[in-house]
Amino acid sequence: MTGDRGRLLLTPGPTPVPPAVLAALAEPVVHHRTPEFAAVFSEVLGGLRRVFRTENDVLVLTASGTGAFESAFVNLLSPGDRVLAVSAGEFGTRWQKLGAALGVDVEPLDYAWGETPHPDDLRAALAASRADAVTLVHSETSTGVVCDLERLLAVCRETGTLAIVDAVSSLGAVPLETDAWGADVVVTGSQKALMTPPGLAFVSVSERAWARSGAAMLPRFYWDWAALRRAQEKGSTRFTPATSTVVALAASLRLLLEDGLDAAHARHVALGRACRSGLKAMGLDLYSPDEDRSAVLTAALTPEGVDAVELRLALRDRHGITIAGGHGDLVPRLFRIGHIGYVRLEDIVAALTAIEAELAHAGHELQRGAAAGAARAAYEPAAA
Amino acid sequence: MTGDRGRLLLTPGPTPVPPAVLAALAEPVVHHRTPEFAAVFSEVLGGLRRVFRTENDVLVLTASGTGAFESAFVNLLSPGDRVLAVSAGEFGTRWQKLGAALGVDVEPLDYAWGETPHPDDLRAALAASRADAVTLVHSETSTGVVCDLERLLAVCRETGTLAIVDAVSSLGAVPLETDAWGADVVVTGSQKALMTPPGLAFVSVSERAWARSGAAMLPRFYWDWAALRRAQEKGSTRFTPATSTVVALAASLRLLLEDGLDAAHARHVALGRACRSGLKAMGLDLYSPDEDRSAVLTAALTPEGVDAVELRLALRDRHGITIAGGHGDLVPRLFRIGHIGYVRLEDIVAALTAIEAELAHAGHELQRGAAAGAARAAYEPAAA
Repeated sequence: MTGDRGRLLLTPGPTPVPPAVLAALAEPVVHHRTPEFAAVFSEVLGGLRRVFRTENDVLVLTASGTGAFESAFVNLLSPGDRVLAVSAGEFGTRWQKLGAALGVDVEPLDYAWGETPHPDDLRAALAASRADAVTLVHSETSTGVVCDLERLLAVCRETGTLAIVDAVSSLGAVPLETDAWGADVVVTGSQKALMTPPGLAFVSVSERAWARSGAAMLPRFYWDWAALRRAQEKGSTRFTPATSTVVALAASLRLLLEDGLDAAHARHVALGRACRSGLKAMGLDLYSPDEDRSAVLTAALTPEGVDAVELRLALRDRHGITIAGGHGDLVPRLFRIGHIGYVRLEDIVAALTAIEAELAHAGHELQRGAAAGAARAAYEPAAA
Repeated sequence: MTGDRGRLLLTPGPTPVPPAVLAALAEPVVHHRTPEFAAVFSEVLGGLRRVFRTENDVLVLTASGTGAFESAFVNLLSPGDRVLAVSAGEFGTRWQKLGAALGVDVEPLDYAWGETPHPDDLRAALAASRADAVTLVHSETSTGVVCDLERLLAVCRETGTLAIVDAVSSLGAVPLETDAWGADVVVTGSQKALMTPPGLAFVSVSERAWARSGAAMLPRFYWDWAALRRAQEKGSTRFTPATSTVVALAASLRLLLEDGLDAAHARHVALGRACRSGLKAMGLDLYSPDEDRSAVLTAALTPEGVDAVELRLALRDRHGITIAGGHGDLVPRLFRIGHIGYVRLEDIVAALTAIEAELAHAGHELQRGAAAGAARAAYEPAAA
């Protein structure tokens, strides 16, 4: 199911890759200046537009999501430009550090980790800061919170502020309407809900963002969007791309779009419900919100006295299941189960029963099987 | 042999990938913060050091070779620093453009395409320019020229000038002694002689380059070497790397180092001899030097009246063989046959006989089979 029973990957990325996508990855390498590559690349660009729900250009970069986010900064901003960077976790903070490193004037709008950014706060911060651009994190992978991006983007439209959206762990998992919601720039990567190995990142660029990029003075060469767009118009890329990963992505987009984005979103909601119900049935406290919107990953706290790091290692070493840990002060208590992309209910049940076994082993009292039962019961109505 | 008879890839990159490497690429995705990844990554870093012939750090970037070259500029230079950029072809010129885009003062040392940079010219240019750094292209993929890098680096050592070497198409194909020759920074990619799909690039950094990087003021975040090194010391990368390509690279480095670098270099010399002999037996003029050092690819001119673009298309469409074309004024006459990495004599013979067939088809008089015979005869002594 995930290719290898000993390796169940339930982290918020990289995520499991379907066998058909791995098979496409292993095809003989194609050259990026051939009609064969142009055909598959054109299919990928069309598929990405559908997943982004946009008529904008979607640019393909050989890089991680962070590289694509850097490309947004250097193509849109000049030294000293002010960026309001909203943070409620690790990735929000990363974009603040990125801006500072590139010589941008970063105005933070900070929440405690685990909180959900609120449109009113954004409105007030924009009024106070008069920022040239805003960075928003759609799905904060460190906490499991998916914000109400539609409402936050509506605030950006009120003030006319250019919005750069980190959708690395959200796009394809939860609804994101690039054009309808007016997101100027949306960044994502291959290795999350797009069910492809890491190595490619994508960025959609609105007409307004293109207009801005003409005046942006931060230096750029590898990340230069205008040059990338010219190459893509000719059916290729500017520099040698991760060709095999492009071929794999074509296969995964076919799988995703065959079922349709709505089906993918419904599946993620169902998986989220299943995961949360199972953890609650064990008596655990959720850290990520207990709501359908936060359908990318589920974060929970171990019971008092059970070390989260030890739990993770036990899952990995005794059950062959890789989940993710917490950050900072929450390392001893927090764990995160990703349910992004090519994940099935059975995978979540496997993780829940393994956690149950380890908690029982640690002396925690619980009813064995309760989590699996609750997960299955919660999944069924949503998936129907 | 290249996995698919219909797809013989004889371009100077991407190059054919051995079946064992494609199989490793298609393994279930591993997470980059696991002991499993740390083990394979450590093997890769050790293997890369052996291929680079260095005790220096070798940093792994998820990017193309151009991205890694950009990383060298932003980690070593400050705005206005002077870089002497030697160019005798497309890639030399690319590094001049890169420097200019990043705000560096680029002093060109230009040769006509196809010429070989000479140590005396470099010495004179360094004396005149007082540059802070030099960029050198070891193998100029656009022309087939491999320079005498050892002697050029000796000139840089005389003046104490920091040397940044583009070894994208050379490392693993022809000798390059990073430490013994004193190359401060060497850049290469996964998709050439390292026989791995594109998507990863590597850069070795000498102690002197590390010292310089502390004072370099060009902005950097994704490319930040110091942060990359800290992550690598912990067995991982700073951002999500192309994990599947790392696993594939481990397999290809195993193949390469099992036979040994000397055997790889000897094979490239033999393939170069075979290719040149075959083309000469058809009466064609070589464009790349007729010398063993230029063992990465062979460039030649079509006979008067035979269009090189048509020849390339015929090879692709009638014979399933992809070779590369020329640039600029030479487009109508120049073609390039790559013999880098996972290429065998049989592949060269297949290309030569296909060219022979197409030239005969175009009315060019030649003795059928002469190229294959000459190629085989030239290969044997070198490979013995």
